[in-house]
Amino acid sequence: MRPHRPDPRSDSAARPATALANAYAAVRAQSEALAAPLSPEDCALQSMPDASPVKWHLAHTTWFFETFVLAEREGFVPFDPAFRVLFNSYYVGVGERHPRPERGLLSRPDLATVRAYRARVDAAMRVLLATGLDSKTAARIELGLNHEQQHQELILTDLKHLFSRNPAEPVYRAGWPLAPVRPRRADWVGHAGGLEAFGHQGDGFAFDNELPRHRVFLEPFALASRPVTHGEFAAFVDDGGYRRPELWLSAGWDVVATRGWTAPLYWERDGAAWTTFTLHGRAAIDAHTPMCHLSFFEADAYARWAGARLPTEFEWELAARDAPIEGNLLESGALHPMPLDGDTPPGVPAQLYGDVWEWTRSDYGPYPGYAPAEGAIGEYNGKFMAGQYVLRGGSCATPRSHLRETYRNFFPPDARWQFSGVRLARN
Amino acid sequence: MRPHRPDPRSDSAARPATALANAYAAVRAQSEALAAPLSPEDCALQSMPDASPVKWHLAHTTWFFETFVLAEREGFVPFDPAFRVLFNSYYVGVGERHPRPERGLLSRPDLATVRAYRARVDAAMRVLLATGLDSKTAARIELGLNHEQQHQELILTDLKHLFSRNPAEPVYRAGWPLAPVRPRRADWVGHAGGLEAFGHQGDGFAFDNELPRHRVFLEPFALASRPVTHGEFAAFVDDGGYRRPELWLSAGWDVVATRGWTAPLYWERDGAAWTTFTLHGRAAIDAHTPMCHLSFFEADAYARWAGARLPTEFEWELAARDAPIEGNLLESGALHPMPLDGDTPPGVPAQLYGDVWEWTRSDYGPYPGYAPAEGAIGEYNGKFMAGQYVLRGGSCATPRSHLRETYRNFFPPDARWQFSGVRLARN
Amino acid sequence: MRPHRPDPRSDSAARPATALANAYAAVRAQSEALAAPLSPEDCALQSMPDASPVKWHLAHTTWFFETFVLAEREGFVPFDPAFRVLFNSYYVGVGERHPRPERGLLSRPDLATVRAYRARVDAAMRVLLATGLDSKTAARIELGLNHEQQHQELILTDLKHLFSRNPAEPVYRAGWPLAPVRPRRADWVGHAGGLEAFGHQGDGFAFDNELPRHRVFLEPFALASRPVTHGEFAAFVDDGGYRRPELWLSAGWDVVATRGWTAPLYWERDGAAWTTFTLHGRAAIDAHTPMCHLSFFEADAYARWAGARLPTEFEWELAARDAPIEGNLLESGALHPMPLDGDTPPGVPAQLYGDVWEWTRSDYGPYPGYAPAEGAIGEYNGKFMAGQYVLRGGSCATPRSHLRETYRNFFPPDARWQFSGVRLARN
Amino acid sequence: MRPHRPDPRSDSAARPATALANAYAAVRAQSEALAAPLSPEDCALQSMPDASPVKWHLAHTTWFFETFVLAEREGFVPFDPAFRVLFNSYYVGVGERHPRPERGLLSRPDLATVRAYRARVDAAMRVLLATGLDSKTAARIELGLNHEQQHQELILTDLKHLFSRNPAEPVYRAGWPLAPVRPRRADWVGHAGGLEAFGHQGDGFAFDNELPRHRVFLEPFALASRPVTHGEFAAFVDDGGYRRPELWLSAGWDVVATRGWTAPLYWERDGAAWTTFTLHGRAAIDAHTPMCHLSFFEADAYARWAGARLPTEFEWELAARDAPIEGNLLESGALHPMPLDGDTPPGVPAQLYGDVWEWTRSDYGPYPGYAPAEGAIGEYNGKFMAGQYVLRGGSCATPRSHLRETYRNFFPPDARWQFSGVRLARN
Repeated sequence: MRPHRPDPRSDSAARPATALANAYAAVRAQSEALAAPLSPEDCALQSMPDASPVKWHLAHTTWFFETFVLAEREGFVPFDPAFRVLFNSYYVGVGERHPRPERGLLSRPDLATVRAYRARVDAAMRVLLATGLDSKTAARIELGLNHEQQHQELILTDLKHLFSRNPAEPVYRAGWPLAPVRPRRADWVGHAGGLEAFGHQGDGFAFDNELPRHRVFLEPFALASRPVTHGEFAAFVDDGGYRRPELWLSAGWDVVATRGWTAPLYWERDGAAWTTFTLHGRAAIDAHTPMCHLSFFEADAYARWAGARLPTEFEWELAARDAPIEGNLLESGALHPMPLDGDTPPGVPAQLYGDVWEWTRSDYGPYPGYAPAEGAIGEYNGKFMAGQYVLRGGSCATPRSHLRETYRNFFPPDARWQFSGVRLARN
Repeated sequence: MRPHRPDPRSDSAARPATALANAYAAVRAQSEALAAPLSPEDCALQSMPDASPVKWHLAHTTWFFETFVLAEREGFVPFDPAFRVLFNSYYVGVGERHPRPERGLLSRPDLATVRAYRARVDAAMRVLLATGLDSKTAARIELGLNHEQQHQELILTDLKHLFSRNPAEPVYRAGWPLAPVRPRRADWVGHAGGLEAFGHQGDGFAFDNELPRHRVFLEPFALASRPVTHGEFAAFVDDGGYRRPELWLSAGWDVVATRGWTAPLYWERDGAAWTTFTLHGRAAIDAHTPMCHLSFFEADAYARWAGARLPTEFEWELAARDAPIEGNLLESGALHPMPLDGDTPPGVPAQLYGDVWEWTRSDYGPYPGYAPAEGAIGEYNGKFMAGQYVLRGGSCATPRSHLRETYRNFFPPDARWQFSGVRLARN
Repeated sequence: MRPHRPDPRSDSAARPATALANAYAAVRAQSEALAAPLSPEDCALQSMPDASPVKWHLAHTTWFFETFVLAEREGFVPFDPAFRVLFNSYYVGVGERHPRPERGLLSRPDLATVRAYRARVDAAMRVLLATGLDSKTAARIELGLNHEQQHQELILTDLKHLFSRNPAEPVYRAGWPLAPVRPRRADWVGHAGGLEAFGHQGDGFAFDNELPRHRVFLEPFALASRPVTHGEFAAFVDDGGYRRPELWLSAGWDVVATRGWTAPLYWERDGAAWTTFTLHGRAAIDAHTPMCHLSFFEADAYARWAGARLPTEFEWELAARDAPIEGNLLESGALHPMPLDGDTPPGVPAQLYGDVWEWTRSDYGPYPGYAPAEGAIGEYNGKFMAGQYVLRGGSCATPRSHLRETYRNFFPPDARWQFSGVRLARN
Repeated sequence: MRPHRPDPRSDSAARPATALANAYAAVRAQSEALAAPLSPEDCALQSMPDASPVKWHLAHTTWFFETFVLAEREGFVPFDPAFRVLFNSYYVGVGERHPRPERGLLSRPDLATVRAYRARVDAAMRVLLATGLDSKTAARIELGLNHEQQHQELILTDLKHLFSRNPAEPVYRAGWPLAPVRPRRADWVGHAGGLEAFGHQGDGFAFDNELPRHRVFLEPFALASRPVTHGEFAAFVDDGGYRRPELWLSAGWDVVATRGWTAPLYWERDGAAWTTFTLHGRAAIDAHTPMCHLSFFEADAYARWAGARLPTEFEWELAARDAPIEGNLLESGALHPMPLDGDTPPGVPAQLYGDVWEWTRSDYGPYPGYAPAEGAIGEYNGKFMAGQYVLRGGSCATPRSHLRETYRNFFPPDARWQFSGVRLARN
């Protein structure tokens, strides 16, 4: 999930009007709830070019509704005309953009003004949602909500990165809740493969990158019944994983050498043990929880060390077919991967949704016959289809209603500030 | 084709011993013939980290036989023990490597010494080739010859780049030969797709990345009957192609902006016309020749502008099935793409081999079930399987005997100093 | 005046105790007054590595008193032990330092906490100031006050730079006050030179870099009666000043080329005219005001273009001998250079103090016999004596009580975010 | 001594015509003798932007005579018009320049062509020198010879750097000659200071930066009787010199940290001992020889560690007044600093000339009243007068006839590939 996000199908959603209005209210409130415990300074800072200030996320998601829904209606008056440029993430079709690495240079508008901006747009949207909507407008709103949910996850991961750069390592949320995750044993779950169809079908919302549904032939394969854990990854580190080039892709080893990686992001040695930084502060790693904050390169090196490989996105999707969309998601409040807390039936992969996004070996490309939407909204997804890899599943920072078995998240192979992990595969 | 190259199947080749000895003599002589017109200075300089000095190519291809064939035999005495490090390209399993960007800092060994190195290794190889060879050794030698052919292409493209950086723009070969290329009209050639098998089969040599043969399902598609030409690409440039972000992948546009690309590599304005740098010196572009020196990003942007797309590597391979391996290859002596010089039967793609490598939309990844060879030689291909894209076909700098329909060349998406072009595809 | 600042003489100041307590109260209040109109976000952001957040300045000046005065006394309890590292600018002798370019990554402590930190330290200082002070402690406090005054100027110049990076170009202070500056005609004022003494003497406070007083022989010279104005500099720009390498020092031209300088900092074309960014917002340049925000390189190129040269710091000091310390200083409230508003007696240089710091041709080095203070405080000045040039005079952002004729400000030759200008000299 | 070099007084030299012709023949032959043992590859490579290929030095010194002497005469025909750009170092007044960092990209013209260029220009110069010369032409030729001598030193230091980057560490000259250096004890030699005159006087040749002669007042000072030795510097290294920021100027410590300096250039640990790279190959350091290849920053840190300081250039010049210009210079053939080989009279500094250039604390600036020559030749010196420091004396790579007590060499404070060392001073 990139901080910038492309567009979905324009013409699909079929929620009743009231449901849409309710969804709007709920999603918008969720963003504000995430920012509620934060100070104006917390919301204004940017810790690296890949991350954005919380304030920017709050404004940009609002800009999306203003620009792609409200601005197309008669009598529209912008909250502040300068915002059209200031909070445009990457839509060339909309005009100029404020440079991404400079989002942390904007002390004005301040947080209070951004909140006023949200209130003003929300008021206009409520009026609109109370009227009859044409299907194109409804689809745009549906897209805007899914877009905002993507930024909710980024609010958390960008803030976590910012807090990690403060020597005081501030706590976002005190306490450490338990999440209801159905237990399952760790083993290999085999699949027969064959010629199968993949990608979205039906009337529900989907992003355009999940389309069109098409056939792919798969050889037989097996997936691990659960993601790699913190304890398993610590064994890799302790076995010299970050010092052995033969375990790495050549491009991955370049990153290890150039950036001086010697351990996963946020890890610090504490004698023989390891600690990591969480949204609850620094904590000892819990050996039984899914490993998170891995880059594609680290996931791949781990798999090679373990004598396995990454799955393809189609292997994952086939395995997830018919699995319930449940797990340690944003709603659990854990904001960190959790251990399995019980038994699961054998032969069924567990923790497919929630905890961590799972890297696949599939490059993020267009499905056969893929066509982006017309206009600026068509920039949502298609132009990022190079040099990135697909992740599947969803994490402890993803809203439940945001996910599908066909959902394709994607990041560059060196990105590791997301809640990203790995599930092993083999032939 | 990276300046570094991984390993093929270890156990396949089945050439008779005499044929192998003859092939050895011919391939080794070809490398020397390419370097014959050059001065010691021409052979010593390095114009960018991606390129290597000609002298290094001459030495490294020799190192390959010394290290992977001769050094494994009893009584081996190295020509110079320091060469084990100095001319190791990237084989971690062999030990230390001299840093790639510093290959142009080595005035010693001089060219004469490198030639003596070649002579010494050739003499030892001739003795070995005259004896009975076990199949593993024969396969290693076959690999070494294919490896050297890859570096022959790099000798030409790296030298071309070096000469282009000299304000005097030296000429590598005077004159401009005609090449016999069978003519074909430009149109769309349709294919039905379906579930087909791809990858190498049979006894002949192949690299490990062409294996194993496996099935892929393809939707119906059409390929252009010939590659995009210099004249067609000039129209893209003149239409503002390098100034319109909406035509580019996001990562491609970053490259355009960061490096200040405003035209293809080697092009210069000459009033309303364009010139380009060739191995025959600077020349006006010939509108009817296949466009060369494109990066993946430029090929992709052109395709979008033209309302088409890049083919996948499987679409290309299916279209090339049963096509004869002939065209404007190294043997023609043209060292530059040539126009079609006659008619070709309708419904058959022309110029599949030779002229230019053709970018595909396929990321360079492992085929299902791919397994690299054991030992250092296993680093030949597999560790480069991230962040690169596959090219198919072969260019005017590729030896005829080097090619197959299943051959997978690969380069990063911003590389454009190879003889790389593009053939359009559509659904 | 660097954001980091070395130490003065430890043993000089001779203010009565009450005067010192009053000075403490006044200087500390001045810092808070400067920050009063700013939001928490305004105070938290950092726009470049050379600049620091306002919040950091408020905390670091407090840290100085806590570390170098309070912490040396019995029973000292730190406000927050983490601050010892967090707000240490560059004193190796005090221990670890938080990296300068990361000062903008600290959302915590927030502004309210920093204000509480100031209040706590001020309370302790008031108790201390009410007791009898030994001369060393009094000298340390005097140093701390001069240190804080240096940071007051940086609060304004750093904030100005931050605001300039916001497309909305926020206004720090509305309105545009007139400042009382004595008028003088523009002409050359000659000096006979000779063997003269320079550097601080007497009992008043001075930084260690103004010591010891020593003799320098000067040839006869002339100084301009006032600094170069915005109008004069615009003529240089319009005459191609930024496109003519022959006008520049070689190192200066490298900077022009590398950073793409085509005009002074903050200038923008408005048709045939120029605007500049001020603490009062964007405004047309006023041709008669002293030119500000010049680097040493730009000042030097201008002087060459004008057929003159930069003065040495000793020429400036000799010319300023006996001149009253008055002009457009911080207290005027102008926060921008102002025009001369009347006539001045001939043969006397005007505007020596205030408006703009004046670049000299003197590298910032130690006076003969210079010795830094003992301990960490000795890092205040000496370790910066390489690669920087001396500025003299004081600017519209400098407090009146901070200046002396022997005062040596210094910055690297490419720095231009200070209120720095130039006064011409000739032989 | 920068690889680029400014101009001297245009109107001084007063050598008889025959002497000038002889000097021309001798200096030109010296350059060729230095290059004689080198291969074409040795002469073509460039190991860093600061260094140039030997071939370039041979051509550029020839370009100087062609451009500034021959090209101004009637009937001049250039050897190759392209050379006007290709071998122009930095003279903006002459026109375009080939970029300095790309000098190592020129395989053509090859070494043989550059030698032919030298022969052609030498023939024309011989004809000219045999005729009566006007004084301006004679002065230009004198300048050209001094210019070429500067490049002779650079041929050696640039080649040494190139060879050092080759893992085989080639030997430039086998053997290790003894040099006749007059012995002197190590002690402090005091000077009274006072108001003294400095800079060139009389009819002999001098560079413009040595003019005009002017008065400077010096406080009493003492200089060490000999430069710091390898053994003394090793004690600094072993005492943690490269790990203690308190010993360094702030800008120097930045360089140490950024470039990872842990020892002097060319040094490698050999157990408890140190080796260094020389033009005779790698060798154990000789504790009694003057330390070489120090940057200004290292020299300054050493002086601080030793409780001393760097001298000013005027202190050095005053101490060198009346000292004979003799020592371990280029003519000794040692090409490396040598130990003192006997006793010297007390109270006289030894080894002022030869062995190593001695860093001073004086920034490289214009003397009062300095005026560069008219025209392109005026770029020789003046435009480099910022950010560099003066070195005095001459090294084991400097020709004897090149030196004077008023000679000012200069380099940036981080440069350390010259034969540069340090002599301590104190008050």
